[in-house]
Amino acid sequence: MCGIFGIFDHREASNLVYLGLHALQHRGQESAGIVSTDGSTMYMRREMGLVSDIFDEEALQEVKGHAAIGHVRYSTAGSSSLKNAQPFVVEYSKGFLAIAHNGNLTNAKIIRDELQNYGSIFQSTMDTEVIVHLIALSHENLTLDRLIAALRRVEGSYSLLLLTDKEMIAVRDPYGFRPLVLAKLKDSYVVSSETCAFDLIEADYLREVEPGEVIHISKDGIRSYFPFKKVEPRRCIFEYIYFARPDSQVYGRTVYGVRKAFGRELARERSVEADIVIPIPDSGISAAIGYSQESGIPFEMGLIRNHYVGRTFIEPKESIRHFGVKLKLNADHETVKGKRIVVIDDSIVRATTGRKIITMLRQQGAKEIHFRVTSPPTRFPCFYGIDTPSRSELIASSHKVEEINRYMTSDTLEYLTIDGMKRAIGNGSGSFHYSFCDACFSGDYPLRFPWGMELEQMELFVKR
Amino acid sequence: MCGIFGIFDHREASNLVYLGLHALQHRGQESAGIVSTDGSTMYMRREMGLVSDIFDEEALQEVKGHAAIGHVRYSTAGSSSLKNAQPFVVEYSKGFLAIAHNGNLTNAKIIRDELQNYGSIFQSTMDTEVIVHLIALSHENLTLDRLIAALRRVEGSYSLLLLTDKEMIAVRDPYGFRPLVLAKLKDSYVVSSETCAFDLIEADYLREVEPGEVIHISKDGIRSYFPFKKVEPRRCIFEYIYFARPDSQVYGRTVYGVRKAFGRELARERSVEADIVIPIPDSGISAAIGYSQESGIPFEMGLIRNHYVGRTFIEPKESIRHFGVKLKLNADHETVKGKRIVVIDDSIVRATTGRKIITMLRQQGAKEIHFRVTSPPTRFPCFYGIDTPSRSELIASSHKVEEINRYMTSDTLEYLTIDGMKRAIGNGSGSFHYSFCDACFSGDYPLRFPWGMELEQMELFVKR
Amino acid sequence: MCGIFGIFDHREASNLVYLGLHALQHRGQESAGIVSTDGSTMYMRREMGLVSDIFDEEALQEVKGHAAIGHVRYSTAGSSSLKNAQPFVVEYSKGFLAIAHNGNLTNAKIIRDELQNYGSIFQSTMDTEVIVHLIALSHENLTLDRLIAALRRVEGSYSLLLLTDKEMIAVRDPYGFRPLVLAKLKDSYVVSSETCAFDLIEADYLREVEPGEVIHISKDGIRSYFPFKKVEPRRCIFEYIYFARPDSQVYGRTVYGVRKAFGRELARERSVEADIVIPIPDSGISAAIGYSQESGIPFEMGLIRNHYVGRTFIEPKESIRHFGVKLKLNADHETVKGKRIVVIDDSIVRATTGRKIITMLRQQGAKEIHFRVTSPPTRFPCFYGIDTPSRSELIASSHKVEEINRYMTSDTLEYLTIDGMKRAIGNGSGSFHYSFCDACFSGDYPLRFPWGMELEQMELFVKR
Amino acid sequence: MCGIFGIFDHREASNLVYLGLHALQHRGQESAGIVSTDGSTMYMRREMGLVSDIFDEEALQEVKGHAAIGHVRYSTAGSSSLKNAQPFVVEYSKGFLAIAHNGNLTNAKIIRDELQNYGSIFQSTMDTEVIVHLIALSHENLTLDRLIAALRRVEGSYSLLLLTDKEMIAVRDPYGFRPLVLAKLKDSYVVSSETCAFDLIEADYLREVEPGEVIHISKDGIRSYFPFKKVEPRRCIFEYIYFARPDSQVYGRTVYGVRKAFGRELARERSVEADIVIPIPDSGISAAIGYSQESGIPFEMGLIRNHYVGRTFIEPKESIRHFGVKLKLNADHETVKGKRIVVIDDSIVRATTGRKIITMLRQQGAKEIHFRVTSPPTRFPCFYGIDTPSRSELIASSHKVEEINRYMTSDTLEYLTIDGMKRAIGNGSGSFHYSFCDACFSGDYPLRFPWGMELEQMELFVKR
Repeated sequence: MCGIFGIFDHREASNLVYLGLHALQHRGQESAGIVSTDGSTMYMRREMGLVSDIFDEEALQEVKGHAAIGHVRYSTAGSSSLKNAQPFVVEYSKGFLAIAHNGNLTNAKIIRDELQNYGSIFQSTMDTEVIVHLIALSHENLTLDRLIAALRRVEGSYSLLLLTDKEMIAVRDPYGFRPLVLAKLKDSYVVSSETCAFDLIEADYLREVEPGEVIHISKDGIRSYFPFKKVEPRRCIFEYIYFARPDSQVYGRTVYGVRKAFGRELARERSVEADIVIPIPDSGISAAIGYSQESGIPFEMGLIRNHYVGRTFIEPKESIRHFGVKLKLNADHETVKGKRIVVIDDSIVRATTGRKIITMLRQQGAKEIHFRVTSPPTRFPCFYGIDTPSRSELIASSHKVEEINRYMTSDTLEYLTIDGMKRAIGNGSGSFHYSFCDACFSGDYPLRFPWGMELEQMELFVKR
Repeated sequence: MCGIFGIFDHREASNLVYLGLHALQHRGQESAGIVSTDGSTMYMRREMGLVSDIFDEEALQEVKGHAAIGHVRYSTAGSSSLKNAQPFVVEYSKGFLAIAHNGNLTNAKIIRDELQNYGSIFQSTMDTEVIVHLIALSHENLTLDRLIAALRRVEGSYSLLLLTDKEMIAVRDPYGFRPLVLAKLKDSYVVSSETCAFDLIEADYLREVEPGEVIHISKDGIRSYFPFKKVEPRRCIFEYIYFARPDSQVYGRTVYGVRKAFGRELARERSVEADIVIPIPDSGISAAIGYSQESGIPFEMGLIRNHYVGRTFIEPKESIRHFGVKLKLNADHETVKGKRIVVIDDSIVRATTGRKIITMLRQQGAKEIHFRVTSPPTRFPCFYGIDTPSRSELIASSHKVEEINRYMTSDTLEYLTIDGMKRAIGNGSGSFHYSFCDACFSGDYPLRFPWGMELEQMELFVKR
Repeated sequence: MCGIFGIFDHREASNLVYLGLHALQHRGQESAGIVSTDGSTMYMRREMGLVSDIFDEEALQEVKGHAAIGHVRYSTAGSSSLKNAQPFVVEYSKGFLAIAHNGNLTNAKIIRDELQNYGSIFQSTMDTEVIVHLIALSHENLTLDRLIAALRRVEGSYSLLLLTDKEMIAVRDPYGFRPLVLAKLKDSYVVSSETCAFDLIEADYLREVEPGEVIHISKDGIRSYFPFKKVEPRRCIFEYIYFARPDSQVYGRTVYGVRKAFGRELARERSVEADIVIPIPDSGISAAIGYSQESGIPFEMGLIRNHYVGRTFIEPKESIRHFGVKLKLNADHETVKGKRIVVIDDSIVRATTGRKIITMLRQQGAKEIHFRVTSPPTRFPCFYGIDTPSRSELIASSHKVEEINRYMTSDTLEYLTIDGMKRAIGNGSGSFHYSFCDACFSGDYPLRFPWGMELEQMELFVKR
Repeated sequence: MCGIFGIFDHREASNLVYLGLHALQHRGQESAGIVSTDGSTMYMRREMGLVSDIFDEEALQEVKGHAAIGHVRYSTAGSSSLKNAQPFVVEYSKGFLAIAHNGNLTNAKIIRDELQNYGSIFQSTMDTEVIVHLIALSHENLTLDRLIAALRRVEGSYSLLLLTDKEMIAVRDPYGFRPLVLAKLKDSYVVSSETCAFDLIEADYLREVEPGEVIHISKDGIRSYFPFKKVEPRRCIFEYIYFARPDSQVYGRTVYGVRKAFGRELARERSVEADIVIPIPDSGISAAIGYSQESGIPFEMGLIRNHYVGRTFIEPKESIRHFGVKLKLNADHETVKGKRIVVIDDSIVRATTGRKIITMLRQQGAKEIHFRVTSPPTRFPCFYGIDTPSRSELIASSHKVEEINRYMTSDTLEYLTIDGMKRAIGNGSGSFHYSFCDACFSGDYPLRFPWGMELEQMELFVKR
């Protein structure tokens, strides 16, 4: 997963992108970058690490100019390297061009092979580079037209920002898989993955960039285009469940409220007699509050999180046992001892973490443990930008709920239903009636890969 | 503030100290260090930064041996440098010696001047070095006796660990200002500032190191001494309010429970009609849950925290305004809009952060804001190891509650009373009857500085 | 200027390339790189700095495999960056490919513009990248044929090494501007810019790679091709004068011997009555010995060199004066005082250094200074790989010898004649009869730029 | 070995020390440091590495003030660390104090033990620290008197510079083992290990600091003292043979001239019929020129040096053979082939390098090799500051010349005699009549260690 942020026509462009990326840091902690322009030259800084570690005052002064785009990238094992950091920048016949991309192109490998056969040379293993080559090869005159021509060739998910010395272009793919929102800061337009970045810089949130929309921002103002074939949008529902920040408005609702509604719905669907409700922090907190309010069972912070777990934490090769989740969480003895506990988690991937947490709670004296998950079983991998493991690693793709319960050693284990999840979102009520992509739960993929490509394609999946 | 951790006679000593320091990271993020011994040589690694950034597998392999002590140090502006990192190590006539110290010596400057006049040369600006010189100058034969002789000369607060090639010695000053606890991991003894470190390594918590106690651990086993003049212990009450981790048992109770009790007591003492109770995360969460449970007003996470705020965050010199607390917290619009809100904070120092939070909540539509503080007004600086600002910076030392309320722009502002705080701790009930140091609230300092020394002494206060 | 080195089919390939590059370090101190292959994957390490600083044991173990090529790059002001370090590596439709290039392509900009107009995207500002794109665009099947097709499009100077997972190819342009030599180490073939690298690894020198020759080395052995239109070779004469290491055999003669012959010839052509002959170290030493032997005037080291002048030396902004050459050289008082001195230098570029040296010698008491240069006046820039300044900066392109003498403040100044230089080389005698490129002295460029391109082209001249 | 440099009362003090240390870089490449003062505070920078790598403009601006001293330290295996870098700085009862020391204290361990028994704590393993403790313990009032009192307690060799906020003091031990010279730069006094540093900054050389002299420099001017018991000076003769830079005036003569005289004397004492004389560069060059001039045998550079051999060069673990000296030197085939060669070296330590050079020359076709050494056999270790190996490693301490010749595989091997060496220096002629320390050749140590201390003392020998 990744986050993108851009601003056009502001004298502190890169400072604001820096702040915006800081607010989007939860969308990617592996690498970050800012590319800016002063109308003639382009300036770039990309590094591995957190936004606040990469950019100091000096670094920010180097990315000069009135327009800038930025990118934070998720940490995935192995395939991470500076070479794949974004924004991606190239010089081609029409000058310089920078792209920041959130999503996955599902036909990237086919196009890449084709282009290489014609003699193109690729610099990275990112699918984003395919778009850049298609832009360079286009015969159109304007960057906007070249970009549209390029995007007509690709399939998959893309919320992206393109920057040249003259313009910034924001695009969201026709399905609108990944979020993208628009705001105004005085006279400048700002584009971001999430609204929490607007709150920080005190920009006024205007609206979503619509699925299939291309927004062109330049000194001549802002113009909107819908150049792609229209399809029914399929916004990613997992942004609500796990990915987005609670204080962000996603698809028109704040995530905190949606998650509380998940918790309330879960309390209605899967009630149980218990003494306390505790979240797995931090992602389970909102839903646990909802569950507590609906069920009347007191909310407690029975698990305390150590916030200093860095990405580089080395687990010493202690012969006796592995520390795993204990480095991050500790159960509060006084709170859990002798209690019947509802534990709230947002989702279950491999079930190993949940199992360890349950062991930890039992060691501290918990009497009963009722594990409640605020989403349906995750049974299918995501091909549209979220870094879920392959099917074979998703426990729910091969095991029944009762089997998972037994593996986890919980007393009971229950998931929210797909219907309950949608009910909780409140879809259909008022102005809120969207169709979502819930492929990770249902297997209903809006967009298939060309036949037989799944496996090979996966290798090209350097998520961004 | 600082945290210390040590283990004797375990073949993975430095690995366990590493884990222990990780669990104590909240007590100091500026620098960290481990010193170990294999019975002949001493090994050391000290660096600026977080435990998980400083120690990788290679670094841990370098600090060899069966015994090790470690230290994390709090980040204080300016005076921080590698030279002042701990454990402090010296070679003197009897061999090598390492010390890790949590606390402040109140007569350090007098002794230092005296020693320098006799020709002693100091390497650092830490008061801990005074102890080391006194040890080197002692005529006693055993390290234990030299240490006791040295400590008889110093005044102030000290929980400390001393390591030689043959022994580990744990000491807590007669007043017991700072916490220090003892555990057993199979056959090895472990000493730590807090019990949360024991939970991580699965050591069995035995008891507090008593105020005035000296514990000597060697191949010959463990022995306890009380060589100092007996005084009435004065444990630091602020550990409960802010400093210790919620899941730690401090002075026999888990902090989470005490903080919830603070919240409950506050609800009783300072009730108000409101729609929601929200904590200032993370320190206010426990108390807010208590307040909610006692008052029946729903608990909500109305303020969302960005956990990626590094110590190096640079605030760009934006001309318009300062971002301050917004980099760390954002108010959830849907949750706070139109609501009467009780905001729970652990303490108020300068009141500037609280004021900004209130502004942020009002901007998101909060209707009423009732600020509730789970401690009495902080009116006096701490001379015993907590890095509070001088009196002139403590707003409560010069302003009445009503004045602070006006400055903060809250609708109402109320503090917990000293009596309520003690009631909440449950002192006197059961086996729990301690006298505490509450000098920061009451000005009742158990130990004064030599006349006229306050100001000068402060400069020597490089907290550790 | 640059140096290249490669070996095929040796189990310690990268170790040997490392040693080879160390021996070629004088040909470029800016950056260095090694690319290797084990027959399936390619491994790469390129960094700014000296070979011995970049590669430690760990770094060498990373560039695995049985075949490897390396490159050292000359430090030119401004345009130096890691992006332009070599060997240049790309992935294209036929797999991976690495190129190490010594020389300059004179029609690089024209081809680059053309390729960009067709949609190609360039990663660097190096002319070498043009070759790579032409290879990728070729319709030939074999790498060898693609390379030959690509080189048929380019003009200029190139001694180059190409590495794929299956083969190593060495090429020298039809004029043979830059040197390239072939050796055998047991069963493995080795290619290098100079023979001094063979001496170090104890490889047996076989012969020059001939001008216009393409040598293909693979598991199937070695094959030689001459696919280009034949022209009269024009080997660079400046390699003898300044660039190559004295102990290297260049074009069949050791440089030390040639330089001594330059000195002898100069003593015959430009004799003068004097007390001592001193070189400007280190480049003038060989010729000064020759001059001394021919003239009978004693050779002395009147100028002592400080060998610790790093590339990063900062000259403090001392108000009084600039230190310049004094950081590197000091005159020996006892040796030069009261003496009539012949000073031997290899060439004069701007004459500023020479002038400072003369001042220094006079300050130490030199009586007469007769400056003798072992090459003709350098009046024209080199377009074939040596980083000479533009014409306007070459003092000899706009001033007569007598004017230069006056500027330098020498008593007399004399250059070697073009005829004398060739006589000294001994051309025509025995098997040694070559035609040289002496364009920097004569202006007789074997290869012109397309009309009007000189200036623009120069900007693309990132020498390597 | 080490080099020291200081200047008092110059507004660019640290810039000039930087230049001075650069000129003295040959005396120590391991670490370098500058300490300066502006009359109130002290500023310091010490790092491992070369002067030009450690100090950039920013670093130099940090060492502010009108007075500064600096130190370069020799690279010795193992015992090198930042902790032992100089100048050594401490704060004691009288304020700050910095010392830069060249030499070795022979009774350091005894004093150190004594001081530690009294309770002193040492920071480093350097013998220099003993002086600092003695200064701190002195009851005298003035720094000058404290320093003199301290030095009266120590034995051994010391040329040193002491800096406080008010004064700079230069001292040379009564024997004057190590050089120390005084100059004036306009109104400022400058002190240096060698005169080559004066030439660089264009300071006017005044005279040696005399053996046993203490020079006090302050705003009140310069004063000279001779507070120590007078002994016959014993200047180190090895500075002429190997250590000092050829262009320096040492003990009143330039080293280049003395070395040429060694070569001439050697030609007279140990003549041989040969075709060429070649030096082992760079240290053998001066003497080889002298030998050539005296014998009439032509001087040639038959061995070419690679100047890019950094300290970090890693020799790959090539199974076949070790490269050793070949990384640094290569024989010029054309020059040595078929020749009878006189090889000139300054001294022989273990004879391994010489043996390898002879092998290399024979491989390139040398017919006869006559090895000539411009000093007598080195048979005894130096205890006064030069980092010679212990006796067991000095081949001449256990083998006869003929045995060494056989080991080296030379045709003949001859050394300069002790008398010849002294004759060459020209002692007794004119104003030049010094007694030297030639203990490394004769075993005649001017100063013995306390009985039985030799071995233990050696361990304290962290040369500086």
